[in-house]
Amino acid sequence: MIKNKKNILILGGLGFIGKNLIEEFLLDVNYNIIVFNFKNQPLDNKWLNKNVKLYYGDFTLVTDLEKIFKENKIDIIFHLISTTIPSSSNNIIADINHNLGGTIKLLDLMRNYDIKKIIFFSSGGTIYGLPNGSFPDRFSEDYQNNPICSHGIVKLTIEKYLYLYKHFYSIDYLILRLANPFGEYHFSSVQGLINVTLKNIANNEPTTIWGSGEVIRDYIYVKDCVRVIKNLIDKNIYNDIINIGSGLGYSVNEVLNMIKKITGDFKINRLESRKFDVPKIVLDVSKIKSIINFKPTDIKIGIEKTYNWILKNSYE
Amino acid sequence: MIKNKKNILILGGLGFIGKNLIEEFLLDVNYNIIVFNFKNQPLDNKWLNKNVKLYYGDFTLVTDLEKIFKENKIDIIFHLISTTIPSSSNNIIADINHNLGGTIKLLDLMRNYDIKKIIFFSSGGTIYGLPNGSFPDRFSEDYQNNPICSHGIVKLTIEKYLYLYKHFYSIDYLILRLANPFGEYHFSSVQGLINVTLKNIANNEPTTIWGSGEVIRDYIYVKDCVRVIKNLIDKNIYNDIINIGSGLGYSVNEVLNMIKKITGDFKINRLESRKFDVPKIVLDVSKIKSIINFKPTDIKIGIEKTYNWILKNSYE
Repeated sequence: MIKNKKNILILGGLGFIGKNLIEEFLLDVNYNIIVFNFKNQPLDNKWLNKNVKLYYGDFTLVTDLEKIFKENKIDIIFHLISTTIPSSSNNIIADINHNLGGTIKLLDLMRNYDIKKIIFFSSGGTIYGLPNGSFPDRFSEDYQNNPICSHGIVKLTIEKYLYLYKHFYSIDYLILRLANPFGEYHFSSVQGLINVTLKNIANNEPTTIWGSGEVIRDYIYVKDCVRVIKNLIDKNIYNDIINIGSGLGYSVNEVLNMIKKITGDFKINRLESRKFDVPKIVLDVSKIKSIINFKPTDIKIGIEKTYNWILKNSYE
Repeated sequence: MIKNKKNILILGGLGFIGKNLIEEFLLDVNYNIIVFNFKNQPLDNKWLNKNVKLYYGDFTLVTDLEKIFKENKIDIIFHLISTTIPSSSNNIIADINHNLGGTIKLLDLMRNYDIKKIIFFSSGGTIYGLPNGSFPDRFSEDYQNNPICSHGIVKLTIEKYLYLYKHFYSIDYLILRLANPFGEYHFSSVQGLINVTLKNIANNEPTTIWGSGEVIRDYIYVKDCVRVIKNLIDKNIYNDIINIGSGLGYSVNEVLNMIKKITGDFKINRLESRKFDVPKIVLDVSKIKSIINFKPTDIKIGIEKTYNWILKNSYE
C-alpha cells in the first residue's frame, strides 16, 4: 500500500457523474475509492477487482452513513446525491428534508468523525435563475442568484451552510457549479437533452422538446468535467465556488441539428414550454481556466463519443 | 363597516414588532387586524374593544393556520414568526423544519385560499454576513449574502422561495430586511442590546457584552420601522427587497455611552466575543428613502422614549 494514500468517499457514486469520477480516480494509485449508493446495483464488472469499495444505503439515515465512517478514515467526500431534478418543484418539503436536511446531517457527521474536506456538486444550470435585469452573456460565480426551481434553491442553501461549517468548524468545501454534463454512464431518461435524445434515437423512439427550442444551455462533456475536478483536488483548491462548463451556449434546436448530422434524422415531440426553464444559461468559466489548463472538448466530438458509447452499451 | 376594508393577518402578532404593527394599523380604519400568536397571552387591555381579533396556535401546524383562513378572507399576511435568534445555530435541523418548512406550508395554504400578498420580515443584521472582500460602508439590498448563522441562512432561503412562489403562483411578496429595532413592546431578555440594557438598568442588574464592544450595528427605533412598513403597504409596493434601518452605524460601546448619559452609570459584564457576530453591519437605506419620505428618529431620542416606556411598564 502506498503511504499517504487518500480515501475518497463518493456519495451517489453509481450515478452518472459518480461512475465517471470512479474511472478518473482509478487512474491514480494515490486514491482509495469508497462508493455509497442508494440503489442496490452492482459495481461494473471491470471495477470488481480494482480499488473500489461499495456501500449501499439511504443518505438521509445517519446510521447508514455512520457505518462507512466507523469502518474507514475518509479524507475527502464527494457529495453528488440529489433526490430532485430541476423539474420537480411539486414537493418542496420533501426536497428540503431529504437534500438540505440530509446534507446538514452529513456535515454534523463530518464534525464527529473529523472529516475535513467536502466537494459539493451544485447546479450551474439552475442556481442563477432569472437576473434582475437583462440576461448576461455568461454567469460568473458572483452573479446574483434567483433560482426558479426548488432544486436550485436547495443547492444554493447548501452552499450557504457549507460556508457556515467552514466558518465554525473548519470543514473545507469546494463548490462546483456544473453546467449540463453529457456523456458516458448517463442513465436518466428524464434529464439531459443530449443523452436522452441519443438514447431515444438508438431505441428508435421520439424525443420530447418543451417550447420552441430556443432555450440556450452550456453543455459540458463529462470526461472534461471529471478531469477538471481531479485537477482541482490535486491542486488542493478549497473554500471556493467554481463554475464548470464549456463557456459556450447552444440552443436546443442547435443541439438537435448537431445530433442529426451524426445520427441521421429522428422524430421530435414538441410540447408547451415549461415555467421553470430559464431562457439562457451560459457559465463564465474564466475562474476555472485561471486555475487549471482547461480546453473543453468540442461538443460535436463529445456527442459522437457519447453516441458510440450508447450504441455499444445496451440498457433499458 | 367601511367598504373595501382590508383584512391583515399578523403572524407572531403579540411579539415585539407585532404589537407595534397593531398599534400603527389601528390608527387606520381601513384595516381589520387579525393576530396569530403561539403563546397563549391576552391582548393588551387597551386593544380589547378595538378592531383586533386573536387566534392562538402553532405556526408549523397547517390545521392551526387553516382555521384562520376558513373563518376570514385574508388580504395581506405579515410573517413575523421565527423560532430562532442569530445566536442559535446549534439546532439547524429544527431551524430548517420550523421556520423554512413552516413558511413553505404557509405559502401552500396561501395558494389554496387564494391569498395574494405576504410581507416577510427578513434579517438585515444577519443576511449579509461576511463580505468576500473588505466590509462596505453600507450593505445595499443587492450585496452578496454570506450569513454566518443559521437564522440568516434560513431567512435568505425563505426570500428565494418567495421569489419562486411569485414566479409560479403570482403571490406578491415584500421582503423587509430589518436592522436592529429597539423600542416599545420589546420583551426578549436575550436579544436586542438597547432594550436588554435599559431593562437591566431599570431592574438594577448588570448587562452582558460579548467582545471588546467594537461591533458596529444599525439601530432603528421600532416606531419608525412600523411607520415605514405602513407607508409601503399604502403605496402598494410589492415584489421587492427593502432594507429598513437608520443607515447609521454605532459600536456597542458608543450605544452604552449614549445610554449612560440618559440613565446614569450601570454595571457591565464583559465576556469573550462570539463567532457568529459579524464585525460591522450598517444598512444602505437609499432604496427606502427613494420610495417614501423617511427621516429616522435620532437614536438618543429613541433610547429616551424606550427607557421612559420601560420605567412605566413593569414586566418580569
